[in-house]
This record gives sequence, C-alpha cells and structure tokens, in this order.
Amino acid sequence: MNELERVDAFWRAANYLSVGQIYLLDNPLLTEPLLPEHIKPRLLGHWGTTPGLNFCFAHLNRMIRQRDQDMIYIAGPGHGGPAAVALAWLEGTYSQVYPEVSRDAEGMRRLFRQFSFPGGIPSHVAPETPGSIHEGGELGYSLAHAYGAAFDNPGLVVACVVGDGEAETGPLATSWHSNKFLNPARDGAVLPILHLNGYKIANPTVLARIPETELIKLMEGYGYRPHIVSGDDPAVMHRLMADTLEVVFDQIAEVKAGDDPRWPMIVLRSPKGWTGPRQVDGLPVEGTWRSHQVPLSAVRDDPGKLAELERWMRSYRPGELFDEHGRPLPEVTAIVPDGPRRMSANPHANGGELLDPLKLPDFRDYATEVKAPATCTTEPTRQLGGFIRDVIAANPRDFRLLGPDEVASNRLGAAFEVTGRVWQAGQLPTDEHITTDGRVMEVLSEHLCQGWLEGYLLTGRHGLFTSYEAFIHIIDAMFNQHAKWLEACRKIPWRRPIASLNYLLSSHVWRQDHNGFSHQDPGFLDVVVNKKATVVRVYLPPDANTLLSVADHCLRSHDYVNVVIAGKQPVLDLMSMDDAILHCTRGLGILQWASSDQGHEPDVVLACAGDVPTLETLAAADLLRRHLPELKVRVVNVVDLMRLQPDSEHPHGLTDTAFDALFTTDKPVIFNFHGYPWLIHRLTYRRHGHENLHVRGYKEEGTTTTPFDMAMMNDIDRFHLVMDVIDRVPGLSERCGHLRQEMTDARTRARAHTREYGEDLPEIRDWTWQH
Amino acid sequence: MNELERVDAFWRAANYLSVGQIYLLDNPLLTEPLLPEHIKPRLLGHWGTTPGLNFCFAHLNRMIRQRDQDMIYIAGPGHGGPAAVALAWLEGTYSQVYPEVSRDAEGMRRLFRQFSFPGGIPSHVAPETPGSIHEGGELGYSLAHAYGAAFDNPGLVVACVVGDGEAETGPLATSWHSNKFLNPARDGAVLPILHLNGYKIANPTVLARIPETELIKLMEGYGYRPHIVSGDDPAVMHRLMADTLEVVFDQIAEVKAGDDPRWPMIVLRSPKGWTGPRQVDGLPVEGTWRSHQVPLSAVRDDPGKLAELERWMRSYRPGELFDEHGRPLPEVTAIVPDGPRRMSANPHANGGELLDPLKLPDFRDYATEVKAPATCTTEPTRQLGGFIRDVIAANPRDFRLLGPDEVASNRLGAAFEVTGRVWQAGQLPTDEHITTDGRVMEVLSEHLCQGWLEGYLLTGRHGLFTSYEAFIHIIDAMFNQHAKWLEACRKIPWRRPIASLNYLLSSHVWRQDHNGFSHQDPGFLDVVVNKKATVVRVYLPPDANTLLSVADHCLRSHDYVNVVIAGKQPVLDLMSMDDAILHCTRGLGILQWASSDQGHEPDVVLACAGDVPTLETLAAADLLRRHLPELKVRVVNVVDLMRLQPDSEHPHGLTDTAFDALFTTDKPVIFNFHGYPWLIHRLTYRRHGHENLHVRGYKEEGTTTTPFDMAMMNDIDRFHLVMDVIDRVPGLSERCGHLRQEMTDARTRARAHTREYGEDLPEIRDWTWQH
Repeated sequence: MNELERVDAFWRAANYLSVGQIYLLDNPLLTEPLLPEHIKPRLLGHWGTTPGLNFCFAHLNRMIRQRDQDMIYIAGPGHGGPAAVALAWLEGTYSQVYPEVSRDAEGMRRLFRQFSFPGGIPSHVAPETPGSIHEGGELGYSLAHAYGAAFDNPGLVVACVVGDGEAETGPLATSWHSNKFLNPARDGAVLPILHLNGYKIANPTVLARIPETELIKLMEGYGYRPHIVSGDDPAVMHRLMADTLEVVFDQIAEVKAGDDPRWPMIVLRSPKGWTGPRQVDGLPVEGTWRSHQVPLSAVRDDPGKLAELERWMRSYRPGELFDEHGRPLPEVTAIVPDGPRRMSANPHANGGELLDPLKLPDFRDYATEVKAPATCTTEPTRQLGGFIRDVIAANPRDFRLLGPDEVASNRLGAAFEVTGRVWQAGQLPTDEHITTDGRVMEVLSEHLCQGWLEGYLLTGRHGLFTSYEAFIHIIDAMFNQHAKWLEACRKIPWRRPIASLNYLLSSHVWRQDHNGFSHQDPGFLDVVVNKKATVVRVYLPPDANTLLSVADHCLRSHDYVNVVIAGKQPVLDLMSMDDAILHCTRGLGILQWASSDQGHEPDVVLACAGDVPTLETLAAADLLRRHLPELKVRVVNVVDLMRLQPDSEHPHGLTDTAFDALFTTDKPVIFNFHGYPWLIHRLTYRRHGHENLHVRGYKEEGTTTTPFDMAMMNDIDRFHLVMDVIDRVPGLSERCGHLRQEMTDARTRARAHTREYGEDLPEIRDWTWQH
Repeated sequence: MNELERVDAFWRAANYLSVGQIYLLDNPLLTEPLLPEHIKPRLLGHWGTTPGLNFCFAHLNRMIRQRDQDMIYIAGPGHGGPAAVALAWLEGTYSQVYPEVSRDAEGMRRLFRQFSFPGGIPSHVAPETPGSIHEGGELGYSLAHAYGAAFDNPGLVVACVVGDGEAETGPLATSWHSNKFLNPARDGAVLPILHLNGYKIANPTVLARIPETELIKLMEGYGYRPHIVSGDDPAVMHRLMADTLEVVFDQIAEVKAGDDPRWPMIVLRSPKGWTGPRQVDGLPVEGTWRSHQVPLSAVRDDPGKLAELERWMRSYRPGELFDEHGRPLPEVTAIVPDGPRRMSANPHANGGELLDPLKLPDFRDYATEVKAPATCTTEPTRQLGGFIRDVIAANPRDFRLLGPDEVASNRLGAAFEVTGRVWQAGQLPTDEHITTDGRVMEVLSEHLCQGWLEGYLLTGRHGLFTSYEAFIHIIDAMFNQHAKWLEACRKIPWRRPIASLNYLLSSHVWRQDHNGFSHQDPGFLDVVVNKKATVVRVYLPPDANTLLSVADHCLRSHDYVNVVIAGKQPVLDLMSMDDAILHCTRGLGILQWASSDQGHEPDVVLACAGDVPTLETLAAADLLRRHLPELKVRVVNVVDLMRLQPDSEHPHGLTDTAFDALFTTDKPVIFNFHGYPWLIHRLTYRRHGHENLHVRGYKEEGTTTTPFDMAMMNDIDRFHLVMDVIDRVPGLSERCGHLRQEMTDARTRARAHTREYGEDLPEIRDWTWQH
C-alpha cells in the first residue's frame, strides 16, 4: 500500500464509521447480513458534510506526519458530528477518554449506538468530542475560532473547514479579514478549507454557485492565495489534495518567513454526501441537498433500503479496514500521528491542559485614595487601565485585550503605554498605537472580537473584551453558545478548566448622552442570567476601587462568563481599597456612612446597583437626611448581582436569613437598578419581603440629552427616589405633601435648565456627600 | 454658475449647516463675529463622515434631475446625523414636517440649537430624520436595508453609502452578496457607495488599508463592477464623481436591460472630516481619526479655537449660499429635485404612505376539522403553509417569506406550489423550487433575512420571517434597533404606520430531539419583552387552528413586532376554528373539556403556554381525573403572553379582576411554560396570587434525546406536573404518597425505555384525550 492508498483506507474507515453511527444499533462489523433490528428506530444525523470532513482530516494527518506539524482541526459545517467522532475513535483518542467505547467490536457497537441516541452523545461536534474547540451548532464562527486559536501559538497550524452554508453568515463573511490581525512570526497559521459541496438543507449555496473567477477574486480580495481542489473521483482527488497540501504548507512556511504576506487557502469542491447512495427512489442523492441528513430513510421497514444500506457500507470494504475483533488494521492507522500530534488529542483543543495562571500585579497598587466617601471622583475604567496595562506587560504571550474600536473610548488607553493595536494592513503616519505585534485587538465587529477571544480562551489563554453595553447584544447568540459549551464541560471530566470569558461593558445605558436612544439597552444582563448559575456572574462595581477588585477576581477565575458593567465617566469614589475588597467579597453591603439607621431597624431601605443608580441613591439619602432627619434610612449597594438570588438557585446566592437581615422582611425597599427593573424582581421573587420591593431602572426612555435628564426620564433620579420613599413609607405621604411638591419642582427646574442651557444644573452635576 | 458649481454650492451649504449644528446656539448666519455665548456648552456630534455624505447626496441630486430618477438615500456611517438633517432642511422637507424649523434665519437657529441638545433631536440619523429608513446607531445593516427597499420596486434606485467602519461588521460583509437575490427586471437597483475615509473612532479601517488591487478584486468577487473616485481636491472630485455617476447609471440601465449581470458600485476615497480644520494644536485633523467627532474642542473657552471655527465656517462662503433672511439662494437649491423626487421627501422612505393592506384569504378556509378536542394531530406550520401560499399568490408584489434555509424544514413548503426561492446565481438540474423571480428568500444569514425584511417593511410592504427559535438570538440586536425605531415613530406624527415585523419561530426548544443542547434556547422572548409594550406582542398558539387565527391577526397589524412560536411537529388539535378564534381573541381561557371544576372554585389551576407544555398539561389533567377524580382542576391555556401583564403595563394586559377570576387569588397555579420559567414570574409578580404561582419551563437542560425525555429533563412532563399538584394542593401530599411514587416510577420507566429503544413509550407518544 502506498501512502495515498493508506490515506484512502483511513478515509474509507472514517466514512464507514460515520455511516454506522447514523444507522446501526448492532452488527457493527457487518459480520452477519443487516437485519431490521440492527437499525436505529429514529435515524438522526447528517451525512452530507461528513465524507468531506473525513477527507480533509485524512490528508492533514499525512502532512502532520510528514512535517511533524502541530495542528488542530476545526469542523465548521454544523453537522459533522459523525465525522469528528469517527476520526477520534480511529485515532484511539476516543477510547482513551471514554474507555467504555473501546477500539474493538464492542466499542464500535457502543460508538454507533450512542450517537444521537438518548443517553448518548449529540449529533453535532460538541464539547464531548475530543479534539474540538468548536460546537457544530449555530453556524458562522469557525474561522474566527481558528484565528483565536492561532494567536500567540507560532508553531501551530489551525486547519479550518468552512462549510459553504456557514460561509453565507455575516460573522463568517467578515472572519476572512482576520488575516489582517495575524502576525506571521508571533502567531500560528490558519489554513481555511472552504468546502463547497453545493447545498445547505434545501438550498444551493452562494459561493458554490458564483462563477469560479468571481470566487477566486473574492478570496484574493480577502488577501488569500486560493487553491482549487475539485472533483468526485476519489483517486484523482487524493492525488490533487496531496499535491495541493504540499504547495500550501510550503506557502505557509513562506509567509511565516516573511517572503509573502498572502496566506494560502483551499477551495475544496466535492459532492455533498460523497461516496453515499447516488440515487434513492429514482432521485439523485449524492451531490444534492437530499444527502444533507439521512440519505436512505425507512431502512428498518423497507428491505430494499436495508439492502442498499448494506451495499453502501460494504462499499468501504470493512474487511480491509478492521480485523475480526473490530480493531483498525495497521494499514488504516498508518497515517495516524503519534500521541499529542493526533488532532483528536492535541492539547490545544483542550486548552485547560496548557493554561498558565495569569501573572497579576497587585490590584491594590492601582487604588484611588479615598479620604472620605463620595467627596471626589475618578473615571473607573481609566483607573483600571493602569492595571490592565501591567497585566498586558506581565503576560506578553497569553493575554489579549479586545474591543470594537472602543479601547481608547472606554478609557483603557493606558494599555498603549506598553503595547499597540495589532494590524498587518497598511499603516500611515497619522495612525496612533498601530503595530504589527500589539496585544490589543480592535476591529469594528463584535462577532470577530467574541469569536477570536473564544478561540483564544478555549486553547488555554486569557483575555478581556470591552464593548458598548447596548451593542453587546450583537453577540447574544455567541454568548449563549459559549455559555452552553461551559455548562456542558462541567460534566466532562477530561475537559480541563479554562480562563473565564470576561466582558467589560463601559459605555453603558446611562451615559449615552451624546449617542441617544439607539445606544441605550441594558438587556444583555437578562440574556446572561438565563444561562446556568454555574457559569454566569454579573458585577456592577459602583466606583474605581471596587472595579479594580472585581477585575482582579474575574481575571483569576475559571470556566465562567463574567459580565462587569462600569462607567468610564467620572463617578464618586465610595470606598477605600480595603473597604472595596471587603464590599466585593461580600458582594453587597450597607453603606453605613450614608445610612441613618445605626443600631436600629430602618424605616426604608434604599438599595442600588450600578454607578449612576448608586449616585442617585446617595443623593436621595442626602436629601432625606436633610429634609426628614428622623427617618431611618439604610443604603445597600449591590456589586455581585447573583447575591440577590436564593442560595438554592445560585452558588453566590444569599441565604434568606442574610437577605432578610440586609433588606428586612417588611420595610419598603426602593431598589435603584442599572438595568431593566424586572430583572431584580426575577432574582428576588422568592424572598420574604418581595411584596415591599419597588424597583426603578431603565424603562426604555431616552434620547440625546444630559446625564441627569436621562435619569429623570426613567425616574431613577434622586428627587423621584425621595418621592418613592414618601409614597411607600407608611405615614409619610400624609405629612410630606410639601416635600413631595418640592421634589416635583426640583425636577421641573432641573429639566428647564437642561433645555435652556444644554447642561445639568451645577449643584446636581457636582453634588458630593457632605460629611 | 455651471452645473458642477451648483453641486458645489449645495455641498458647501450642507457642510456649513452641518458644522453649525455641531457648534452653534445662535448667530447662525455669522452676521456678527462668533462669541462664546453662540457656542453650545457641550459639543456633541460627528463631523468625520459628514462632508462625504453631503458630497454623495449632492451628486445624486444631479442624477435625479437629469434622469428623473426615483431614488432614496441610505446613510450607513453611524454618525451622519448632521448631514441628513442639513440636507433635508436645504431641500425644504425639514420645514415641511417640522414647521417651527423654518427655512430662514430663525429656523436655521433652531435647526442648529436642537441638534444633540436636550429636548432636541438625536445626533444620529434617526426616525425623526425625514428621508431615512435607517437608524445611524448600531452599525452594519445599511446595505441589507437598501436591498430590502429595492425588492419589488423596479423603478427605484437605492443609493447606499457604506462606511468603511461599518464594512468591517459581519452583517455588512455578507450583505454584498444580496445581489444574488435581486431580480433586475422585477426589483429596483442598489447603488453601494463604499466610503473609505480611512478611520473609525480611533483605528484605521481594513478596507481602506488593503492594496487597491485587493479591494477591487474583493468587490469583483462579490459580483460588482467597482468604480474608484479618489482624491481631496473638491473641483477634481466633483468632475470625477459626476463622470463616474454617468457611467454608473448607464450600467444600472444595462443590468436592468439584462445586458450584464454585474451591478456597478462606487469606491469613494475622500479625507475624513474633508474641508474641516487641517491641523489643530499642531496635530493633523482633516484626513485622520481626530476629525471623527468634534474637530475643534474647547471653542467656548479658547478665543483662538473660536476664531478657527469662524474661519472654518466662513470657508464655505455662507454669503454666497443664503440670503440675508437665511433662505438658501436659488443657485444652491437649483439641483434640488421637485416634490417627492427629493430624497428627503421620497415616500419610499416613509413607507406607510405607500402601504397597501395585505389581501388576505379567509384563514378559516384552512382550518383543521376538530370533532373532539385533543383526539387527532396536525402539524401546525404545515397547515399554516396553505394559508401563506395563498397570501403569496394574492399579493405578488408586496409580500415576502424569508428564512435562513428553513422554509421547507419548518414545513411551510406549500408556498412552493405557487412560487420558488429567488436566486440569481447559477442553477443546476438537481435544484428544487429555485427561480429568478421567487417570492421566498432563503439565505443562511439571519442578519440578511432580518435586514432585508426591515428594509422591505420600512418602504411599505409586508413579510414573514421564519427561523429556528434558538438561533433567532443572532438578530437580538437588530430586533432591538427595529423595536426602538417603532417606539420612536409612535411620537412622530408624519411617520405613517407600517406593517408589523412578524416572526414565526417553529423549530423550537422542545423539539430539537435531533439537534440537541446547542439548538435549545427559548430566551428570545426575554429580549422581546424588554421593549415597550406599545410595540411588542408574543403569541404561543397551542395547535393548528389557533396558529391560523394568530397568523391572520399578525399579518393585519401595524407597527408591532409579533413573535409567534408554533411547532412544526404533529400536535393535538384542541379547538375547532370557531373556538380557536374566540380563544385567540380572548388571548387566554379555560379549556372546559379538560377541567373538572365546572361551576366551582378549583382546587388547583393548571396553566400552560406553548404547544408541548400544553400537551403535557393536558396529559397531567388526564392523570389527575383518573387518579384523583374528586380534585377540581382548572386548565387554562395562554395564547397571548402579554395578557398576563397588568393592564397598566401592557395594552393587552388583563385587569386584576379578570386575572383573578381565571387564576384565583389563593389556589395553587402550576404554570407549564414554553420558555424560561422566570418570564412568567416577571409578567405576573404584581398579581394577587403570585405567591401561589409555581412555574415550570426550560431550565437549560437538554441533549439529543426523545421529545418526552426532553420534557422530563426539565420537569415539564405530565408526571412531574402531577407531583407538583400533589406537593402544592393542601392535604394532598399526606394522602397521595402512593400516587407520587407511581409518578416517579412512571418517569423512571419512560426514561429506561428511551435509553433502551431510542424512542418514547408508545402510550406516552400517542396519548390522546379520552372523552
């Protein structure tokens, strides 16, 4: 057997194992004729993309062995589950991590049975699949994941099969431009293989149906050197693919040596459902959309179909592939690389194995000095910037800061004291902080930032993604998928913990004075808390020191999604660093200096979460102590939103006893919240005092206006909070009619001033706490 | 003055008015020297993209007049507010819709003052801006909107300026391929103008920095004929742009005549902040990122800067542009087209003006006959398909059905009896229902489906978007922006009502048996209900007839986003068409035949929303009547989710009296919900009986398994509901220990069967109601 015959044998074995997974409950080696009881009652799975994925993998194995290449494999097409599982089993990895699915006939039987079967494994490439960092569910992120994996891995090649269906998505269409952010010397290589099999579920695909001249121009326009591998005769295609890969790997070496900036890529045109049934019931199947899922249906009930399936499976000549015990023959596994060189066992695809803890400077060194609470202001993210700068400097190979053109605007510009924005395209003298090897990644695509960071984290590195709060909804779906990946990994012992995905949402809903309504949306939190409590964390630090403490905590954590919301505009400094650490450790607490209930049960609790709501709450407490000095007010600030949930619902949840001690069980609680108010109700509806809870928050009112006018439009302002207290504390409304009117008048005055002068009243804008 | 001099005068006037909006409170005509009090205290706005937008608009006006062309203008760059407002004022449209902003000096003063000012108008192109269908907030959707506007408007040209920042987004990157879905004869033309001004907020842009040869290949690869207009000398650029537009409009005519399939597009390279300050404080500004927002800051405090601003404004020679009363001179307005030919006044940009009601067949004609409730099954979306087919046939020019390759998979295939999928790329004999003039649009990009449909609706047409429930999160952010647009339009009298945006989410969380965990997410509803009650509606019809009734209602409605969730798998027929209409009109109601509380207060309410939860609730009611015949059970089904909110919160909300009459104030309510359970709590937390409400729903548990196993994994199954009843109805838990155990055993049996045979127990799968 020559080398290409061995590649072919491996391919046939993978195809055989893929078909077996879709169809068979038993008789895996076809040692007896197929009978209906060997067939699964529900045929679930996707054949269409599978032979192409197996084909690429087999040929890449040849290259790995030939060049001792470190390589991982990303299967972009959504439905490649049978392929990835078959390949991992053939390489022996599957049986290593799942010993009960042994590499013999009994293991093969289990392999087949478990696929898409209750109690078994998903039909897509999933966290359960060894060698994968990419879920084959929602489409469009393969290439961004591939680039994320390649960053800072100079020896690695990330082979990425891009499906032609997936290629129609927006995220994928812009992912091709990731090559402008890949440094050939410092980073690894990405080898995109655009797999044109012509059809999606029921439709043709765009890239398969445009003229080939256009397709080549498109890929050249994206900055690649395309190589076409096209055909359907396996022998011809093996030769073509092998020759092409030789050229491609030589070109990768050229790019890495700096000889040419254009990375190679491959366009693979092969029939959908290649090597499957040509026709079924007189209709063409191979090469058409009909082979997308299960090409032969009703196999259990139709003897003719059963016979067709058997012919199909035997066309791979299983007798030449497996011995009588079901073990792959040496000729089949001859092209399988050794140990961690196997793509199914490469440690980059189980990134936790490679994870080094981040080297973190002491965040306390970046503290703002706070002599008296709420008397001075700091820009929290600017303060954080110094810390992030030194994190970047201390971790020059495994930490990245990402943002859609908002790193400077979000005031993390200190980073540019030690690094720049990575950029391989043209530069001009008017550029600032643009360099070919920067640690900051900025592109106006939240999808790319998210996809790159996911790929980077999943291969064992660290990062921080900063963005506008409203527009982070752009990656809601990607967040969902990553959170689901983390949730699934909790049940997979061989998946090692990875660094958390950290969001810093800094240009938030309350300070879109200049951008207006379209930029105001705090609803990402509502999406986040839908995911399992085991993987999501939400923090709303109210000032610079609490932000530092939270950031340090998040950067140390594993396997979470941490969402941090903190303003970039100046906010009052509330806590010394020691107090901030204590407050963040507790997650919430009473601001004693702003409270007037010392040693007593309060008459009312003013709770707050978020920097602007906290400011307004403090100003309201100030008004109350001046106007109603006898009223016992307790001010509670919440940093860790998950503390509000019962401890039975979330690991951070407070016990009812602790919750009641803070919020009381029977006093009015006026909760001033950063986001949509019902989120607080949702988190607390099981608490004792819930019927006394009154939440203020964003109620979808906004425009281009001043900060205080924004607060007033949504009734989270200090004056309205005082009115809420009057309305809700028993007895106050009767005797405080005058004060209530005063508050209404104050709002009217504030608004009139804003409309007249275009800015807030100085006494409102510059309010501080008088101790 | 020759024609190009008139174009230049118009351009200078627009630029002058743009600068004025950013800076001036008063002295709009510079009739006196600029003083600090003429300057706004907060300088908000974006100059960078503005002169380019004005330049394109001016030249397009010339073409409109020359060829009597029907044209609208989409300003893709996010920050073009000053331009769009200035242009509409120059054309007279602004003063028509906002008479207080007259076309004279006082109107100009108001025009300047209101911009980005409290009580004024947003800094971006917004619903308030005449002539716009495109919000300049979140980036990336301009080109999809443009194509949506062009569909079925054969005489229209949609000029679309694409910013080079925006061009980095995923949605925009794939939008270029929309040309494969535009029929030259039946549809209008889209003229993309890729405006490369080189910088985003702080970063260079990818497309401005790749080699021009690559850029040309990229555009050719996307299927366009690119034309480069590049430079910074206004006189040269005017000549070049004018000549180029002649060629471009000739080429558009060629494409429409069928002579060439490649649409033209323009690459406009001009400096960012063109004609603005070259340098400020010794740093380059024009042509750099420094001109992104306000090129000259501190103008009010710095006399030097103030003088620079005055020099800058006078550089446009306002004395040659406006008369002493502030009215634009005839030479300036000479290029303005007449009446509705003005792009700022084109009725396509206020689509409600052109909206024809949809011609709807009688949905009752598509009813499933239901002799006895819950005894037969129908595939609801297949039933709906017949109705949609006839809607398509009856509205051949203003209704489209869109989906990301899921129309057939979601069982709306009846549409293909009267039309096909539109497709201008290559076709093969193995394709089915592919045609160049189909009414169905399928592309594997939720972004494109959403963007096209938005553009189509905003220009006065109708449509339906069908997608997987989990993956509709991909367009969360686009939904948010469209909902905000609709919210804003409620306050703008001259914006006429448009057709609602209708979603049909059919492959939903409970029936992802074959796709597993990554395909399971019902959280889109949580995003939707964050938007204002005035614009969002959510429907969960439990069977085929209710789906038909709901669909008819949604297709008739205006200015809403309607989300309909309905399964494609067979579900029990619950209601005759008459009953279904009544039920949907009420929005919720008691299923009397399944209830055992006739004439009495119930012991427990079993509420349900969604097809699978309703099935399990009915099966639970069935178990209860068999095992606990004396228990008075009320079954309530909810179709219109917004009925659960108080009437003070949502126009569909029930009064407390009506709510209490259905749900009681003190009996346990076991609510079986389609989505995440807390959404029901969030909608009902103010209701009297809320503390008795126990909600079951999706709790983020799932995999590839059988439908009933999915229900069990999340405790929404019939057996668990019976256990919930036992646990919550006072007195039952003591005497029903045996029944409780029986339910536990039934679950165990069901699961064991599933694991063994890969399918549900027949008696569970085939359960029906025995009357």
